[in-house]
Amino acid sequence: MSTIIHKITTRDARYTLQPGEGVDAVHSAPQYSYAVCLLHSDRGVTGSGLAFTLGPGNDLVCAVIDALATPLAGREIEEVMADFGTIFRKMADHPQYRWLGPHKGIVHLALAAISNACFDLWAKSRGVPLWKLLLDLTPTQLVNTLDLSYFEDILPRQEAISLLRNEAATRDERTEVLQRGYRGYDTSVGWFNYSDEQIRDNAKRALDAGFAAMKLKVGSPDPERGIRRTLMVRETVGDNIQIMVDCNQQWTLPVALRVCLRLAEMNPYWVEEPTHPDDVLAHQTLARAISPIKIAAGEHLPNRILFKNYIQAGAMHFVQADAVRIGGVSEFLTVSLLAKKFGLPIVPHVGDMGQIHQHLVLFNRIALNMEEVLLEYIPHLRQHFVHPAIVANGVYQTPQDIGSSSDLHP
Amino acid sequence: MSTIIHKITTRDARYTLQPGEGVDAVHSAPQYSYAVCLLHSDRGVTGSGLAFTLGPGNDLVCAVIDALATPLAGREIEEVMADFGTIFRKMADHPQYRWLGPHKGIVHLALAAISNACFDLWAKSRGVPLWKLLLDLTPTQLVNTLDLSYFEDILPRQEAISLLRNEAATRDERTEVLQRGYRGYDTSVGWFNYSDEQIRDNAKRALDAGFAAMKLKVGSPDPERGIRRTLMVRETVGDNIQIMVDCNQQWTLPVALRVCLRLAEMNPYWVEEPTHPDDVLAHQTLARAISPIKIAAGEHLPNRILFKNYIQAGAMHFVQADAVRIGGVSEFLTVSLLAKKFGLPIVPHVGDMGQIHQHLVLFNRIALNMEEVLLEYIPHLRQHFVHPAIVANGVYQTPQDIGSSSDLHP
Repeated sequence: MSTIIHKITTRDARYTLQPGEGVDAVHSAPQYSYAVCLLHSDRGVTGSGLAFTLGPGNDLVCAVIDALATPLAGREIEEVMADFGTIFRKMADHPQYRWLGPHKGIVHLALAAISNACFDLWAKSRGVPLWKLLLDLTPTQLVNTLDLSYFEDILPRQEAISLLRNEAATRDERTEVLQRGYRGYDTSVGWFNYSDEQIRDNAKRALDAGFAAMKLKVGSPDPERGIRRTLMVRETVGDNIQIMVDCNQQWTLPVALRVCLRLAEMNPYWVEEPTHPDDVLAHQTLARAISPIKIAAGEHLPNRILFKNYIQAGAMHFVQADAVRIGGVSEFLTVSLLAKKFGLPIVPHVGDMGQIHQHLVLFNRIALNMEEVLLEYIPHLRQHFVHPAIVANGVYQTPQDIGSSSDLHP
Repeated sequence: MSTIIHKITTRDARYTLQPGEGVDAVHSAPQYSYAVCLLHSDRGVTGSGLAFTLGPGNDLVCAVIDALATPLAGREIEEVMADFGTIFRKMADHPQYRWLGPHKGIVHLALAAISNACFDLWAKSRGVPLWKLLLDLTPTQLVNTLDLSYFEDILPRQEAISLLRNEAATRDERTEVLQRGYRGYDTSVGWFNYSDEQIRDNAKRALDAGFAAMKLKVGSPDPERGIRRTLMVRETVGDNIQIMVDCNQQWTLPVALRVCLRLAEMNPYWVEEPTHPDDVLAHQTLARAISPIKIAAGEHLPNRILFKNYIQAGAMHFVQADAVRIGGVSEFLTVSLLAKKFGLPIVPHVGDMGQIHQHLVLFNRIALNMEEVLLEYIPHLRQHFVHPAIVANGVYQTPQDIGSSSDLHP
């Protein structure tokens, strides 16, 4: 049965958070927002695709979605997805909008929303959750949804297909994760402006809720504050809990070198975004100097090309691609295949509050045999999703609703 | 006499080119456009700052200018420029718009226009051309206009000041360039869709006009076309003329490696944008493999951080920063200081048609003692500028009008 895209609209959805929620050293007043691409079909189902922003400018992302998505109008979704890599590249290389990136910033956020809407509509048209749709594809069909341009030197098309084929035989051994669920970590323990007392309370509450991993914001003009609070959380939760510290790009390289060595005694699971996200070589220098402390990055990397550079340079250990920042599900899978090749785990940043990524980590685990690490858990927008992710005892339960869990209440 | 910014407006200025003008392999239908920031002062002078786009989306850059420039309203221009580095950083790190970059794409283009308008108004308020304004600043005053954050490991503030101080004593030896003018190269000889005959005619016309350097577009799905046409131009102009070949990011790394070695026999002055602009390590690999062929890049590098990575990696030989792409005059000067430290020449890409850059290369030559290479010449928007650059016998004549030569006819 064919599903034809007969109308494309956008929605500028902005939400008010509770005081302190989502605040870090640089994003002092976030208004969590989605630029939504809606692909209305002739069969009543609507593909919903998200890009994440902090409020102002969300309308500009919507404007670019309107402009870039036009080639999809009137197209049948199976036909679109049979060669989505080509369509993705065509939209990414729009002869005028490309100048405004290329492949970064507002124009690439728009592409993320469009790409996500296509995958959502595809899953809905087949009546399956996104993770099931992806697992049902052959390696060739999966790779046909990817734009592998500029990856010729590192992940040629045939090698991408082989990576998937090689893991196919053992796939059944890994489907147990569907029953067990995927382990989450609590990212909302230590927002930047929370008091020490709030953070201690949140850390205990996270333990009670079943989480064995949690994140603290430590980026600050005064690094001592972050060091002190990391020690406080370590003392609160004990030695067996994983603590991630997140600097939100606030350290210079010299400061990062000094502070990371100080943090070592608190045994952080990773140090996240230690400095500017475009500074591949600073991350490389840091990774070499602070071993065995590990670096997580990717929240602000705009596209697969920068991930390629980070990975080639040995500048990251945890790959935090975000499907609502880079070019959607398609480019997320491209980065996943590259990470697989290099033996690095994907631990998504979840601008989508984990809604889409809960599907994607299941695919990565089962189809790509990637290490099962953790999925960020952040509940601040729960009530706005039609099918909010269910996290019980610190574990994401496998979503059963059709699509990518991206539908927002009207 | 004080000059107060009493109103900030924007202008969405779009221009139609002649058929074929500005066309390369990826930008197939450019509409040269400026998102203009206008700083209206109480003294009748207006600061005009440009960011360059290809048409669609120019309005979105204007929208972000409106949002980011608000802290300038009511401020006195000397006071603003006395600490512009801090103001620049504050605008670049807007708590919500930063998410839409950071420091890249539409939001950074908006910052370019604002920064350029500030420098333009500053020069006009002092009644001097931009090059003279910059030369009149002390090293400390100049460095105060720069945001050197994330440069702590490579160009600390004091070192930036020293770089300027060290060249001050010999400055008078280099002012002769003001009389002589700055040598240009003709970039409009070989747009992508021009016929072989057109290109040969244009090359001869460039020689007749006094140019001893010219550029050819060679990026193409079929590399043979570019190789053939480079040979054709070489045969047309002889061995003593510099030919730059521009790939406009169209080659994969494996193709670039192969084609560059083929081009060697035509002795290109540089190979420009061989592959994706975010791919620092691909450029590094290429630079090592194709020596002595040199790489020019920067037209699409969004900010000083990526220039830092290219320069540290030895991935570029000619630094093509563009003040209407990166954060305006301020960030252009930051990149210039870094290039100076590493002994690399700045050869701007001129989205401004050379209007602003004719001032900046004079400053770089005289104050920083940088190698005098070439300034791109592209006349397509000449008639739209109030004070179009004057190029005689292939040489930019030193501009004498006050400001940065950025005023457009209404």
